[in-house]
Amino acid sequence: MENGDSNEGASAFHMPEWMIQFADQKQEFNKRPTKIGRRSLSRSISQSSTDSYSSAASYTDSSDDETSPRDKQQKNSKGNSDFCVKNIKQAEFGRREIEIAEQEMPALMALRKRAQGEKPLAGAKIVGCTHITAQTAVLMETLGALGAQCRWAACNIYSTLNEVAAALAESGFPVFAWKGESEDDFWWCIDRCVNVEGWQPNMILDDGGDLTHWIYKKYPNMFKKIKGIVEESVTGVHRLYQLSKAGKLCVPAMNVNDSVTKQKFDNLYCCRESILDGLKRTTDMMFGGKQVVVCGYGEVGKGCCAALKAMGSIVYVTEIDPICALQACMDGFRLVKLNEVIRQVDIVITCTGNKNVVTREHLDRMKNSCIVCNMGHSNTEIDVASLRTPELTWERVRSQVDHVIWPDGKRIVLLAEGRLLNLSCSTVPTFVLSITATTQALALIELYNAPEGRYKQDVYLLPKKMDEYVASLHLPTFDAHLTELTDEQAKYLGLNKNGPFKPNYYRY
Amino acid sequence: MENGDSNEGASAFHMPEWMIQFADQKQEFNKRPTKIGRRSLSRSISQSSTDSYSSAASYTDSSDDETSPRDKQQKNSKGNSDFCVKNIKQAEFGRREIEIAEQEMPALMALRKRAQGEKPLAGAKIVGCTHITAQTAVLMETLGALGAQCRWAACNIYSTLNEVAAALAESGFPVFAWKGESEDDFWWCIDRCVNVEGWQPNMILDDGGDLTHWIYKKYPNMFKKIKGIVEESVTGVHRLYQLSKAGKLCVPAMNVNDSVTKQKFDNLYCCRESILDGLKRTTDMMFGGKQVVVCGYGEVGKGCCAALKAMGSIVYVTEIDPICALQACMDGFRLVKLNEVIRQVDIVITCTGNKNVVTREHLDRMKNSCIVCNMGHSNTEIDVASLRTPELTWERVRSQVDHVIWPDGKRIVLLAEGRLLNLSCSTVPTFVLSITATTQALALIELYNAPEGRYKQDVYLLPKKMDEYVASLHLPTFDAHLTELTDEQAKYLGLNKNGPFKPNYYRY
Amino acid sequence: MENGDSNEGASAFHMPEWMIQFADQKQEFNKRPTKIGRRSLSRSISQSSTDSYSSAASYTDSSDDETSPRDKQQKNSKGNSDFCVKNIKQAEFGRREIEIAEQEMPALMALRKRAQGEKPLAGAKIVGCTHITAQTAVLMETLGALGAQCRWAACNIYSTLNEVAAALAESGFPVFAWKGESEDDFWWCIDRCVNVEGWQPNMILDDGGDLTHWIYKKYPNMFKKIKGIVEESVTGVHRLYQLSKAGKLCVPAMNVNDSVTKQKFDNLYCCRESILDGLKRTTDMMFGGKQVVVCGYGEVGKGCCAALKAMGSIVYVTEIDPICALQACMDGFRLVKLNEVIRQVDIVITCTGNKNVVTREHLDRMKNSCIVCNMGHSNTEIDVASLRTPELTWERVRSQVDHVIWPDGKRIVLLAEGRLLNLSCSTVPTFVLSITATTQALALIELYNAPEGRYKQDVYLLPKKMDEYVASLHLPTFDAHLTELTDEQAKYLGLNKNGPFKPNYYRY
Amino acid sequence: MENGDSNEGASAFHMPEWMIQFADQKQEFNKRPTKIGRRSLSRSISQSSTDSYSSAASYTDSSDDETSPRDKQQKNSKGNSDFCVKNIKQAEFGRREIEIAEQEMPALMALRKRAQGEKPLAGAKIVGCTHITAQTAVLMETLGALGAQCRWAACNIYSTLNEVAAALAESGFPVFAWKGESEDDFWWCIDRCVNVEGWQPNMILDDGGDLTHWIYKKYPNMFKKIKGIVEESVTGVHRLYQLSKAGKLCVPAMNVNDSVTKQKFDNLYCCRESILDGLKRTTDMMFGGKQVVVCGYGEVGKGCCAALKAMGSIVYVTEIDPICALQACMDGFRLVKLNEVIRQVDIVITCTGNKNVVTREHLDRMKNSCIVCNMGHSNTEIDVASLRTPELTWERVRSQVDHVIWPDGKRIVLLAEGRLLNLSCSTVPTFVLSITATTQALALIELYNAPEGRYKQDVYLLPKKMDEYVASLHLPTFDAHLTELTDEQAKYLGLNKNGPFKPNYYRY
Repeated sequence: MENGDSNEGASAFHMPEWMIQFADQKQEFNKRPTKIGRRSLSRSISQSSTDSYSSAASYTDSSDDETSPRDKQQKNSKGNSDFCVKNIKQAEFGRREIEIAEQEMPALMALRKRAQGEKPLAGAKIVGCTHITAQTAVLMETLGALGAQCRWAACNIYSTLNEVAAALAESGFPVFAWKGESEDDFWWCIDRCVNVEGWQPNMILDDGGDLTHWIYKKYPNMFKKIKGIVEESVTGVHRLYQLSKAGKLCVPAMNVNDSVTKQKFDNLYCCRESILDGLKRTTDMMFGGKQVVVCGYGEVGKGCCAALKAMGSIVYVTEIDPICALQACMDGFRLVKLNEVIRQVDIVITCTGNKNVVTREHLDRMKNSCIVCNMGHSNTEIDVASLRTPELTWERVRSQVDHVIWPDGKRIVLLAEGRLLNLSCSTVPTFVLSITATTQALALIELYNAPEGRYKQDVYLLPKKMDEYVASLHLPTFDAHLTELTDEQAKYLGLNKNGPFKPNYYRY
Repeated sequence: MENGDSNEGASAFHMPEWMIQFADQKQEFNKRPTKIGRRSLSRSISQSSTDSYSSAASYTDSSDDETSPRDKQQKNSKGNSDFCVKNIKQAEFGRREIEIAEQEMPALMALRKRAQGEKPLAGAKIVGCTHITAQTAVLMETLGALGAQCRWAACNIYSTLNEVAAALAESGFPVFAWKGESEDDFWWCIDRCVNVEGWQPNMILDDGGDLTHWIYKKYPNMFKKIKGIVEESVTGVHRLYQLSKAGKLCVPAMNVNDSVTKQKFDNLYCCRESILDGLKRTTDMMFGGKQVVVCGYGEVGKGCCAALKAMGSIVYVTEIDPICALQACMDGFRLVKLNEVIRQVDIVITCTGNKNVVTREHLDRMKNSCIVCNMGHSNTEIDVASLRTPELTWERVRSQVDHVIWPDGKRIVLLAEGRLLNLSCSTVPTFVLSITATTQALALIELYNAPEGRYKQDVYLLPKKMDEYVASLHLPTFDAHLTELTDEQAKYLGLNKNGPFKPNYYRY
Repeated sequence: MENGDSNEGASAFHMPEWMIQFADQKQEFNKRPTKIGRRSLSRSISQSSTDSYSSAASYTDSSDDETSPRDKQQKNSKGNSDFCVKNIKQAEFGRREIEIAEQEMPALMALRKRAQGEKPLAGAKIVGCTHITAQTAVLMETLGALGAQCRWAACNIYSTLNEVAAALAESGFPVFAWKGESEDDFWWCIDRCVNVEGWQPNMILDDGGDLTHWIYKKYPNMFKKIKGIVEESVTGVHRLYQLSKAGKLCVPAMNVNDSVTKQKFDNLYCCRESILDGLKRTTDMMFGGKQVVVCGYGEVGKGCCAALKAMGSIVYVTEIDPICALQACMDGFRLVKLNEVIRQVDIVITCTGNKNVVTREHLDRMKNSCIVCNMGHSNTEIDVASLRTPELTWERVRSQVDHVIWPDGKRIVLLAEGRLLNLSCSTVPTFVLSITATTQALALIELYNAPEGRYKQDVYLLPKKMDEYVASLHLPTFDAHLTELTDEQAKYLGLNKNGPFKPNYYRY
Repeated sequence: MENGDSNEGASAFHMPEWMIQFADQKQEFNKRPTKIGRRSLSRSISQSSTDSYSSAASYTDSSDDETSPRDKQQKNSKGNSDFCVKNIKQAEFGRREIEIAEQEMPALMALRKRAQGEKPLAGAKIVGCTHITAQTAVLMETLGALGAQCRWAACNIYSTLNEVAAALAESGFPVFAWKGESEDDFWWCIDRCVNVEGWQPNMILDDGGDLTHWIYKKYPNMFKKIKGIVEESVTGVHRLYQLSKAGKLCVPAMNVNDSVTKQKFDNLYCCRESILDGLKRTTDMMFGGKQVVVCGYGEVGKGCCAALKAMGSIVYVTEIDPICALQACMDGFRLVKLNEVIRQVDIVITCTGNKNVVTREHLDRMKNSCIVCNMGHSNTEIDVASLRTPELTWERVRSQVDHVIWPDGKRIVLLAEGRLLNLSCSTVPTFVLSITATTQALALIELYNAPEGRYKQDVYLLPKKMDEYVASLHLPTFDAHLTELTDEQAKYLGLNKNGPFKPNYYRY
């Protein structure tokens, strides 16, 4: 769910400081939902679990019912009570959202059909910890259709769509999640997924690593039966590499974060759209003619720049890497240092994965009404803390929009308090979620069915052929028709007609 | 010099058939300069040596003087006669071309300045075999400025700019090359570079592998003193990997073809411009509103599609790889099979690296005046041979432009007889050549100065830091200002402030 | 506020003295009332008054207070009660919105400064009937700063921002407007503006023609003192031309709808942004790879097509006019009949100003999940009525989003029930409103200060010089620096150095 | 043939009977002669006649034959000798070029078919003076097919394609033109067209006004039989307006220069392509990353900016008109004064129609290697004369490319000596020529067939319906399918189903 070019991936790569700190530092539970910061494996609550996550659909979130779900006795229409959600009666609303999502996730629906006969997950007992959304529900129900039994908790205390959780519970999925969990609720829900009589998971699907951490800490013996972990987040993947490095990873793990489909599509194409959406929803600004500086020209920066240029903005780019810098030049962007343009720009967007890219000094020099936001990694890029000084006045003008006012009346428009704009202020297209969910499903199938010895106690990337398969499942959405190699052509190229079609280092 | 996504690179990758055939097949010397085909190491003349290569500048190519340069006695103004060029008197014209090129190759000029004091190539004796152009001259004179002695032959019997060769000879470089060499001349020139009293090369700079091949065949003992080979072409690199695989590579070799700067800039950005230039110069067509199908969506295809879309063409794409196919979709191109659109398109462009992508059947179904050309690899993509049948009439309407006429009067406009359009019908921007030449210079410096044991008898890719350095040398051209990491940021990211900034698998 | 291509002619005035100077030329009534739906002056409620109009800001709209504002006794802090708004206590919230808008309407703020000394509207008594938004408030307060007295009602029963109305009332403006007026309220508010003891308007600013209509009907004698009408809407302008044609227009009127700044900027540039915003906010769809058909390639269609193409959609265009059709071709769009693509497209957008462009037959043939929306004129373009049949089920899935479900389960996603997407589902950028408001202010100044006889009882267009002046006032927003002609150049071109720079028929 | 924004007004005719029908409306002489340099009718040689004009095809221009065509005795294969061309034996080559052009001028070919039966030009005796190219030949042979007799001279002493002239002569057209005429030859050829026993023209087709001027001067009585003049150039049109103003225009004239199809397509779309082509062919530069300033944002400037931005250049714009300036801003270009960027840009392009836009002072401040060229009107925009000073050295480095060298070694790259880049250094796409030629043919038909009194001794614009007809004839090239209005829709819009579809002032 995080943007930014991660420095993780191949196990050969050294870990940067901000990752290494994870294991060493303790962080207080932060009541204000932020999306980041350093985190300790030993701290009490997951950082990622406090991400907020916007959704267009939440019909029934009346806050009238203040009873904790943990204190309620609820049953679904079949009398089953092995779940804990906000209100089982909202199931119908949730089912509608799931049905809408199904229409936009044809890859998973195709997977249901293709793998229906053989039930490749027959016998699989999957425990999952992810955002609970309509899209996740489509994934869960697909896993079910493939033969798996699932138990699920939320990876984030705010992101659960209660209606969807209710719909899943109504359908018989043991779901333990609601919007606005406390820290204690969070771990209680996770525990309810794994600590259950007569059922022991043999697969883990995690997003952030909290579930994996919990099992490591509380039920290490469970790993004896677990065939593998599938992890989707930058943070969770990092934790796995740490475990591996430390020799403590006791099952194979699949890093689905670094698959090409996720990296290129999630970062480049998704950000190309969400930067516009995020800025519009928060500020209603017109893009035409605006001067914008985009810090960082990785995939995220490339997407932001392409979109803004296309809409008539004048875009400047900052970079530290000369290769990306040269790409920016060839793509038609002036490459500058932030200081050179900070006085003149209307918008500052960070996409670096770095920290303190926008400093108080920069903020002091921006012109009145300058908009500042972050599309990169976590909330470190803009030094928001430096704005919490007595001489500056903060004024919340809209949800996710603060005016920070200087003594001379100058206002800076800070979006999402420096957290990720696209997660906070726009929606994530179902299409992108579909790619990720399909990848997760395939990774589970692969790990579950892999013959003894194919995977060791290490972190693996998805085989390229699977990336290609995920892509191919999404082509029908676009009525796209793939060409097949003739036998003669395949021989000429030295390729198998079914792929993989590129060497592993191919850059796309 | 070839476009197309090569399948070479990491030594781990298997070789496709069309490469493997190199070593096993014998090919007749082809009098008609083509740009490709299978080639045998044992055949008498280099395939690549017959590439033709367009140049805007050739002032003095009067064919009045038919005497072979080998039969002439020429001396430069200092009385030196250790060279063989068409006409030493053309030196002044060539010098002007070199001076113009210098203005557009600031990276090499910067290299001259930066490395001037220490002469990193002092003692280097470099034998080179490349196209002899103004840009190559800037490279050679840069190597000289860095301390090297050079001897040079042409890698292609047609591509030498006689004036430039004369200018180099006048400046004291032993150059053996002219436009229109015979096969025998070709090898004679190479031999004159290496077989010289009292001088033995210790470095090889090759483009196509012919020079390397010659030394292997004739002077294998020379390798004892050779510190390394720098090779720039797809074909030459392939030969090196074959040697390595066969255990016959006896010195380290540097593959500069697969560096990111070359791949991304040469293929994507260069083709983005040369597709337009090549089509305009040959056909004067208007791009607006034309329907175009581009076969292949690798870097070359991406460049062609972007340019044509930008100029108002309606572009369809064909692909075999679902990931590239999905990229095409997200970039706004209809993904089709060639058959679906072949009747309606105005232009067919191949960029696949594959063979028989456009078959006679396709050609039969094209509409009148359809333009067919190749931007991919070699001349295999369009089945031109299938058009050499009695019922079709060929009419050469302009240089590089044939009308192939069907019995019913339908005409197909075939460009460059199916060879590479951008090499045949447009010019290669100096900027791209500058990137390649700088990379070659750095590779030579690296191999020459590497401590014992750093490189073994294998094929190496340029270290990422060098790629980054090449890129950084080209930024001043764009008045581009790179941002430097603070110490704190470098620590946070776990990076050295001077790079490399990305893991090796980074896709850019 | 309506999109669509409208009527404009040519005329050439001078600027007012305090600005430059005006000529007195007359604009003939334009006989061709194209693109305007016919409507009756005698109908009971304004059609435009029922358009709803989205706004990002409405903090305090708790529906707790159900008392009609007409029944409340409210006073502002100075004891004044000559207004009728929802809740005067919301003034502070509204003031903040006004202040934000001021920052984005630099042209009006500049006008305040430039004309401050001479008060060009001193003595003006302006009655206005427009949307009551923060931007309107900036206009009203500008008129006040220029010397005018104003009384204001809303031109739409839904669009009033109550906080803004409160802020205006608090500042002493007699404002009669609230969100959710009844039809009776609507006319009551208008009447309260004009029917007041000891105050008689001498200028009218209207949007839709309802205010003008009311005065014609109820207080025709008032026109004796009225110096002119400024009208901004297509509909209102049409009414004025009708009056003029019928010989019933008894004062000069200024048509500000057809100025080039409004037409080109409002339609082309604004729609370029609002089509994306409207689609995202309603459907969260991803644009990349989607197939879209845009009906109509006027300014609105051009804007929609440009934006969607830029975001990676594949766009088809339908047109009736061969010139616009050829433009679409040259811009890279396939020109089709709707029938040819209706089965395959993901989105249908109408921008024609025509009626029944999308018929039930088309709707029947669309694929599942196809999105249908209107960016053109009013709600005639899609035959929504044809969907109100018993076999189809309507399901409201979100605000402004209906699923229309066919018996076989196929769903069509209908946005805003076929009304204007950008007014209903996105916000209008302040920048565009600024252009319109500035034009209105200048038109009022011109009419108010025009010497006897310059304007007769007819409908006039803004002089080109004023269009240029409005544009020039907006350039500082972009830090744009205009070049001035030298005397020699002006003479060469036969132009005045201060403009106008183009003949009236110039197309831009 | 000149770019630049010109004069157009409004009028509304009907189509000719064989097509549709015409109205008889009159167009007032437009008093504002903007953007046209003043030139004297009495000067000795046409300015436009010295423009050179590049062509891709000239196979047989060996300069071996130095005999003046006037001194040769030549006959075509039928024994006819009423022509004067370089070499009648080149006819076959020319015929091939004409056949190629026919394939790209479907509108004229369609006209031949549609009007074949009735021969709308039967009895017409047309004397023409235009560029003699393959496209002109298609026009002439179309006029012949429609019943006209033609005699033709060249409007430019350099632009004649000798092979094409030969082919026309071989086909029986009395053509008097060759490449490289002297001034005396130029007028002699024109005279041979009109001063002929037993044949008197009744229609004039002129490009630049020289033919018209010659008849005025030498054979004023000829106008008694002449039904009208069709003029295509800015300059020629200006001359006609001058004659009209002076009361000396004695026949109706049709201004085809200012039709919307010519203005929008020739200027915007054609320049969008030719700016790239002209720069590439002269300099081989890479566009990506280059900084460019474009002076003027009319149609020509808009085309140049769009193309260069699309190819990755960073584009700045200068403007004098605030409306065009605001368009530049909204389109994403920084609006600057030339001085602000002159030191940093790589390319300067003028598109203003003005004079001395680039002065010596600017040239002095440009950086080394800056490219300077003109896409606007004639050769006034760059003050080239100011560079003819002793301290500057001129070096012709390629055809149409001069290096101007400052004492400190700085070089400016001046293209086409400041004349129009696209005419000098690129080719004009046949498609654009097709639009113009079709318009000319229709204008001739209209004037020739107009009933007495429809046209007076004045200058007329093409009726919009004819513009629409020209456009519609070009749609099949793009396989574009126009939508027809239903009766109900036409009624709703108040339009005739066959057009015209827009009011005269519509901006497109």
